[in-house]
Amino acid sequence: MKASRLLVLGILMLMFCLTCACNRGTTVRTEAPMVRIAELEIDPAHLESYKAALREEIETSIRVEPGVLTLYAVSLKGSPTKIRIFETYADVAAYNAHVKTPHFQKYKVGTQDMVKSLNLVETDPVLLGAKSR
Amino acid sequence: MKASRLLVLGILMLMFCLTCACNRGTTVRTEAPMVRIAELEIDPAHLESYKAALREEIETSIRVEPGVLTLYAVSLKGSPTKIRIFETYADVAAYNAHVKTPHFQKYKVGTQDMVKSLNLVETDPVLLGAKSR
Repeated sequence: MKASRLLVLGILMLMFCLTCACNRGTTVRTEAPMVRIAELEIDPAHLESYKAALREEIETSIRVEPGVLTLYAVSLKGSPTKIRIFETYADVAAYNAHVKTPHFQKYKVGTQDMVKSLNLVETDPVLLGAKSR
Repeated sequence: MKASRLLVLGILMLMFCLTCACNRGTTVRTEAPMVRIAELEIDPAHLESYKAALREEIETSIRVEPGVLTLYAVSLKGSPTKIRIFETYADVAAYNAHVKTPHFQKYKVGTQDMVKSLNLVETDPVLLGAKSR
């Protein structure tokens, strides 16, 4: 009985591993990724709360959405309330799916009173050079 | 005996899973990467030559320099002469080494008459979220 339960546990772990490897190793890259730079100004009184919400949103998006490739968030040196996010999505469909996710909606609604301004800069990739990890 | 072997198998699988999740989820860089956004305006008469030189410089840097993590070059939609490069280096030493390389010097000297303006925006990372490749 104990052995069979361990066997079931082992099989479940193996299935999880394979899912993990499938989802995370073979990210589909299309010919035309969508790249955008978000420029935000955050209310200084809410900066730490905003950054906590942003980090949670980024971690979740990268972990669960196959089409979210980068969400690189930085602040301008000397101006910590000025945030830039370099966003790369596999394609427009991946972006459209992203903005409908519960974690993005939670971030969007939860931070709306913390964001003083938001400018979305649409771009065309020239070359997206990155070290493989 | 059988149960204990299954237990060992289960533990090994769990360790593999955790390694898998760590390596392939949100990329966590514990060292302090240096992140910079370069904002350039290119002479329209030399845009194609500039982009060719930039692509060569990016490809070489990513291939031969261990500390050059990303050189994401994009142009603003509708303004192809406005270039943004999202640059990530492992640390300041990696950046200092980068600007001394022959391929960077070739790019810098070769494009100096094509670049109308260059603004280097220094940043502090908030969270650099990226899918593993």
